Amino acid sequence: MNCEGWLRRALAAKRDGEILDDATWRRIVEGYVAGTIDDAPIAALAMACAIRGMGDAEVAALTGAMVRSGDVLAYPHAAGIVVDKHSSGGVGDTVSLVAVPLVAACGVPVAKLSGRALGHTGGTLDKLEAIPGVRTDLSPEAFVAQVETIGCAIAAQSDRLVPADRKLYALRDRTGTVPSPGLIAASIVSKKIAGGAGAIVFDVKAGRGAFMRTAAEAVGLARMLVQLAERFGRRASALVSDMDEPLGAAVGSGIEAVEARDFLRGDDRDPRLAEAIFAVVHEMLRVAGVPGERVVPAALDALESGAAYARFVQMIEAQGGTRDAVERIAAHPARSSALAPCDGVVTAIDAIAIGELARELTVADGPFSGIRIVARTGTPVRAGDVLAECAGTSVEPAAVAQAFTIGATAPPPRPLVDAIVRDAAASEPSKARS
Amino acid sequence: MNCEGWLRRALAAKRDGEILDDATWRRIVEGYVAGTIDDAPIAALAMACAIRGMGDAEVAALTGAMVRSGDVLAYPHAAGIVVDKHSSGGVGDTVSLVAVPLVAACGVPVAKLSGRALGHTGGTLDKLEAIPGVRTDLSPEAFVAQVETIGCAIAAQSDRLVPADRKLYALRDRTGTVPSPGLIAASIVSKKIAGGAGAIVFDVKAGRGAFMRTAAEAVGLARMLVQLAERFGRRASALVSDMDEPLGAAVGSGIEAVEARDFLRGDDRDPRLAEAIFAVVHEMLRVAGVPGERVVPAALDALESGAAYARFVQMIEAQGGTRDAVERIAAHPARSSALAPCDGVVTAIDAIAIGELARELTVADGPFSGIRIVARTGTPVRAGDVLAECAGTSVEPAAVAQAFTIGATAPPPRPLVDAIVRDAAASEPSKARS
Repeated sequence: MNCEGWLRRALAAKRDGEILDDATWRRIVEGYVAGTIDDAPIAALAMACAIRGMGDAEVAALTGAMVRSGDVLAYPHAAGIVVDKHSSGGVGDTVSLVAVPLVAACGVPVAKLSGRALGHTGGTLDKLEAIPGVRTDLSPEAFVAQVETIGCAIAAQSDRLVPADRKLYALRDRTGTVPSPGLIAASIVSKKIAGGAGAIVFDVKAGRGAFMRTAAEAVGLARMLVQLAERFGRRASALVSDMDEPLGAAVGSGIEAVEARDFLRGDDRDPRLAEAIFAVVHEMLRVAGVPGERVVPAALDALESGAAYARFVQMIEAQGGTRDAVERIAAHPARSSALAPCDGVVTAIDAIAIGELARELTVADGPFSGIRIVARTGTPVRAGDVLAECAGTSVEPAAVAQAFTIGATAPPPRPLVDAIVRDAAASEPSKARS
Repeated sequence: MNCEGWLRRALAAKRDGEILDDATWRRIVEGYVAGTIDDAPIAALAMACAIRGMGDAEVAALTGAMVRSGDVLAYPHAAGIVVDKHSSGGVGDTVSLVAVPLVAACGVPVAKLSGRALGHTGGTLDKLEAIPGVRTDLSPEAFVAQVETIGCAIAAQSDRLVPADRKLYALRDRTGTVPSPGLIAASIVSKKIAGGAGAIVFDVKAGRGAFMRTAAEAVGLARMLVQLAERFGRRASALVSDMDEPLGAAVGSGIEAVEARDFLRGDDRDPRLAEAIFAVVHEMLRVAGVPGERVVPAALDALESGAAYARFVQMIEAQGGTRDAVERIAAHPARSSALAPCDGVVTAIDAIAIGELARELTVADGPFSGIRIVARTGTPVRAGDVLAECAGTSVEPAAVAQAFTIGATAPPPRPLVDAIVRDAAASEPSKARS
């Protein structure tokens, strides 16, 4: 098996840092999906890509071949250009649950294909499914119909879309070949292209709680994602945002759904989460073609008028939930407080530790358990002050307190959004205006 | 399967150019042989080794783990330190068939574990088995007993020796990861250590007809082989020798056996082959502890007295052949000549083309077909002169002639042996002498 000379030559070429042509990438993906090429040569190829890097044309060829491995969705009856949004994964990242109905309420259809929790990071599907009755396993046909009628949907990637990515990602996960920018970009963009979005916003997280540890790495990936989407004729924009500490106050699938509901309803809006949501919504509306001067007023109006919350409830109802279920969700009643062990200032919050502890809680005590951050980085505290609240009983509050570093002086404030990378089309009108 | 964290961390470390410790290499080899680790992570690891390189300690750890994957031979009743010899593969490399009985006839036991033809290169086992009745699939017990009683044996590697290498080599062969000096050295040396040799001579071929194309690459591998053998307490020496053109005059399994017999018997001794044989025999006797001043006289005496030929016949008889069979082997009776198309000087002979044509002939017309080089590089020829003789009918002589380049002026003469790398023990007495 797989002793074909062309494949061996391709592996040798990639090993030596050469560039493979489009036809070779197509043959590799087709053979792997068909099962005529087994895991071993693909694992070797992925390792060569991870070490040697990939040319832009190679990433595009791989992406195209992956898209062609399955179905591609289209929205002929949608009200306008359909937008999708991708986050590279973080802790307390409740942005999608709010941004999707908010953008839809501005008249821009959103087709959001999401993933599950991975390691210490949460997954939008898990958060949505915490609301009783809600389903995310929509068929491609049901997903398209919901986007066309209600204007938004959040669903799991169908097995019929990009089967090559599922197979390749599982292999990369067990062969130490996940952190390759080219392979990451091909994986992300192929799914968005197959999902049929005409415009895409990427939210690339950087920091201790993210897969990209440095802002420089994250900016490199953001550029690659935007250029790759452009090659496929998509409008695109990418944010690079901080994930040194949890994004929203709530960490835990169900309590993040509660936080999203409260945000949309106006009951409670964590300022840091609000900043992240507005940045993402801004880019989603821009790439969908909303004129620059209309973007902020439209978003504020949708939020303040209750239209965004109404759209959220409509989406939940379309996916099997009820308004009543949305109204009734609440954090686990057993509460305890993680306390500051000494006087000082919170200088860091370990996002990975918080994410893992919240995961432990939800596994043991159900989806509405988790951790709520009370004292953000930079907050002065006295010994005994509350740093975080735990909902659920299976984690010691002292363990949660250990994720907080208390120091003598406040660290310099960090911007939430480090950089925004926009496509070529986006920069033209801004030139015209200046 | 294989989602163990330790293995993923090891792959990630090797991907990033780090060094894996001994225990990790041992776990990897043990898991791969036991089947608890499948091909994919090992293919990725091999690719990372091929690109990033390996530290000396890593190569040693891998080699040790591979040796422990199977049986290890020992020769408690041998007449002295047992020597083995390895060639990295070439065209017309008949050295082993002559050197093994010649060294044995000098009183040094030789336990030669050999391989098959690979690509355009010949295999010692195929050459030996061309002699009717001869078997090379000796059991480890029979192989040891023959070395202890007759003083020499040439046999295939038993499946009981270094099973890890067989599995790993098959995987590397199909994943573009063969050309990694560390993996090559571990493969070669593990087999020699498991074969129980106390001293080893490596003949690393360099040139257009070899796996190492440049002398610098070959010298690097030669050094690695000698140092690795030393780490396992073995005396060792490595030659780097030219494989730009075929080594002996005969190319083809059976006709190389004829050439070896004729060389031992004194009927016909190709000068280039003689030079190669004496270089190898010299190192084999030295690493076995024969005093420097005794080496050349002992070898010449064994050859001229007929003792070396007698030992060859004895070995053949022990392995199922007869003296009569040895005496009767001869080249295929159908002969044709490849002729020079013009006047000039032979400036190059394409060893790969000659090897492949000889392979075609032996496959179609049986083991005693093949090609005999008549005009070596540097030989002046006139149009119509014989460049080579073909035994067998299935290849056009014109195709053989095309492997010869005829130019206006002779190229500068090339030494057959480019370099000799000796172990630390070897250099001490030579310092003492100086």
